[in-house]
Amino acid sequence: MKIRGKEWRSLWFENGVLKFIDQRKLPYKFEIFPAKNVEDCEYAIKEMVVRGAPAIGAAAVYGMVLGKENISKTAEILRKTRPTAHDLFYAIEYMVDKIKNNEDALNAANGYVEDIIDRCRRIGKTGEKIIKNDMRILTHCNAGALATVDYGTALAPFRIANRKGKKIFVYVDETRPRLQGLLTDWELKEEKIPHVVIADNAAGYFMKNGDVDMVITGADRIAKNGDFANKIGTYEKAVIANENNIPFYVAAPISTFDKKIKDGSQIKIEERERKELTKINENTIMPEWTKVRNPAFDVTPSKYVTGYITEEKIYENLKDFKIL
Amino acid sequence: MKIRGKEWRSLWFENGVLKFIDQRKLPYKFEIFPAKNVEDCEYAIKEMVVRGAPAIGAAAVYGMVLGKENISKTAEILRKTRPTAHDLFYAIEYMVDKIKNNEDALNAANGYVEDIIDRCRRIGKTGEKIIKNDMRILTHCNAGALATVDYGTALAPFRIANRKGKKIFVYVDETRPRLQGLLTDWELKEEKIPHVVIADNAAGYFMKNGDVDMVITGADRIAKNGDFANKIGTYEKAVIANENNIPFYVAAPISTFDKKIKDGSQIKIEERERKELTKINENTIMPEWTKVRNPAFDVTPSKYVTGYITEEKIYENLKDFKIL
Repeated sequence: MKIRGKEWRSLWFENGVLKFIDQRKLPYKFEIFPAKNVEDCEYAIKEMVVRGAPAIGAAAVYGMVLGKENISKTAEILRKTRPTAHDLFYAIEYMVDKIKNNEDALNAANGYVEDIIDRCRRIGKTGEKIIKNDMRILTHCNAGALATVDYGTALAPFRIANRKGKKIFVYVDETRPRLQGLLTDWELKEEKIPHVVIADNAAGYFMKNGDVDMVITGADRIAKNGDFANKIGTYEKAVIANENNIPFYVAAPISTFDKKIKDGSQIKIEERERKELTKINENTIMPEWTKVRNPAFDVTPSKYVTGYITEEKIYENLKDFKIL
Repeated sequence: MKIRGKEWRSLWFENGVLKFIDQRKLPYKFEIFPAKNVEDCEYAIKEMVVRGAPAIGAAAVYGMVLGKENISKTAEILRKTRPTAHDLFYAIEYMVDKIKNNEDALNAANGYVEDIIDRCRRIGKTGEKIIKNDMRILTHCNAGALATVDYGTALAPFRIANRKGKKIFVYVDETRPRLQGLLTDWELKEEKIPHVVIADNAAGYFMKNGDVDMVITGADRIAKNGDFANKIGTYEKAVIANENNIPFYVAAPISTFDKKIKDGSQIKIEERERKELTKINENTIMPEWTKVRNPAFDVTPSKYVTGYITEEKIYENLKDFKIL
């Protein structure tokens, strides 16, 4: 991804240290968070120094490198960091297999990450084909390069379309409680793609008014039947898009599909802590007495999905999707 | 409404001064904002010292008292404060008529306000009948006593049900950008009604999971066909409720119905300033470069509404609604 004109990745491994662009500090500060051991990596995933399903997977493979001396313990620690994203578990199993087969851990991890980046680039190329000139597209949360090491999933088609000279305009849901929409805002600004940030409540307003031609989001886990988990609020946007006959696409690499899960009801949803709602950065925005519920994801039934933009092709019908 | 056990109204006229509970300071500080002239009243409405369609109407009648020496100029100033709520225009016309007929302005204004309070109390009694014991009800924004001088519209049935000993549980949308859900949180806390605040994005999650039995919101303006304007995000919640077969009620006094407006497409929607999204209280939560769009209301088509809880009865079909 371009940051002040220079190419970056959201995380990388350098001289035995796993380095992250600290996403908790963005968009205000650009800081690097170094993880020197498994505990640092565990912290980075749990506390959302790194976030986004594919980037969490990438963090996990390097976390396995950091803790390769005791793979079963390392795998156990990392598995407990976040419950919803499938990539995390997929990445850990991948590394357990490789290390057990005596492959070089760092080589295997690098291979995994290069593969993610390549898949995201291909998602961009696949998705770009359905983006027409002058389209206005809504996205939720950040499924950008930050969430996926590079390119992004939902944002990859935007990036490729923009680089090809197509004019697009993006509505970015701010995505409470954590305001990951601001990460998307930052990425689009760096990429010079015109856009606005809106309150999540306003997405329906713009969709109903005919201001949105398409919705593209990422996914944290996709069940065999196409139901998918993604950032809280995605379900609402999908239903509203459907109600207004606006195509709704999910952009995700094949690794996000979880063959073991028949439908969305089997996806475990993480409820996160109170302070995600009551504080923004270090500012307290709700009174002490306020009780909250804070589910971090929701599940959108496949009936609301027009198609799944993958690195292979756009699947409009998962019945011809061989991997499942 | 009860505040620390004592009865209060959201605004009242005392010794020639219009006094408001300053809703910009709540729930953190309980302060009184005095309006000594029309300009103070104009400021209070524009800057949302007072908010909520019926309370704005009440502010306007007292504003007309403050500016009764020049009614046409006063009416003009007040008409320009906010564009969406019908009560504002209704209240101004009411006072223009009364003053032209040489009625005492303060008496007329007091009569209007007592009437609002009485209507809200009756909305509470009407709406309470459809609230069953152990119901879990979702509401959006603040359609409480603060928004209506006393009792509230959407919150009036909650208040009455609670005072009658019915057990209810309320999901309160935080209602970005201005977080009026915190006003509802505060009112429900004072009234000892169990509830939680959730991100607007999470409303769909709870509705889909079967955790919500009913939705009740207020309305800022209702067209002849039942389409209604209310706080941004109401449309999304109504569509999601409909999708999940959850009854969706609008609670509003008859004065909210605008006979001059055939359907929702004729309702003017206010777009408010950028800083409502980018700041919370005095804390900046978005970068300087972030561009936003900030529509303050949306229009929900009548097909998503199960019924209109008014002071007369619950209208499930507006065809037998004589006033329209």
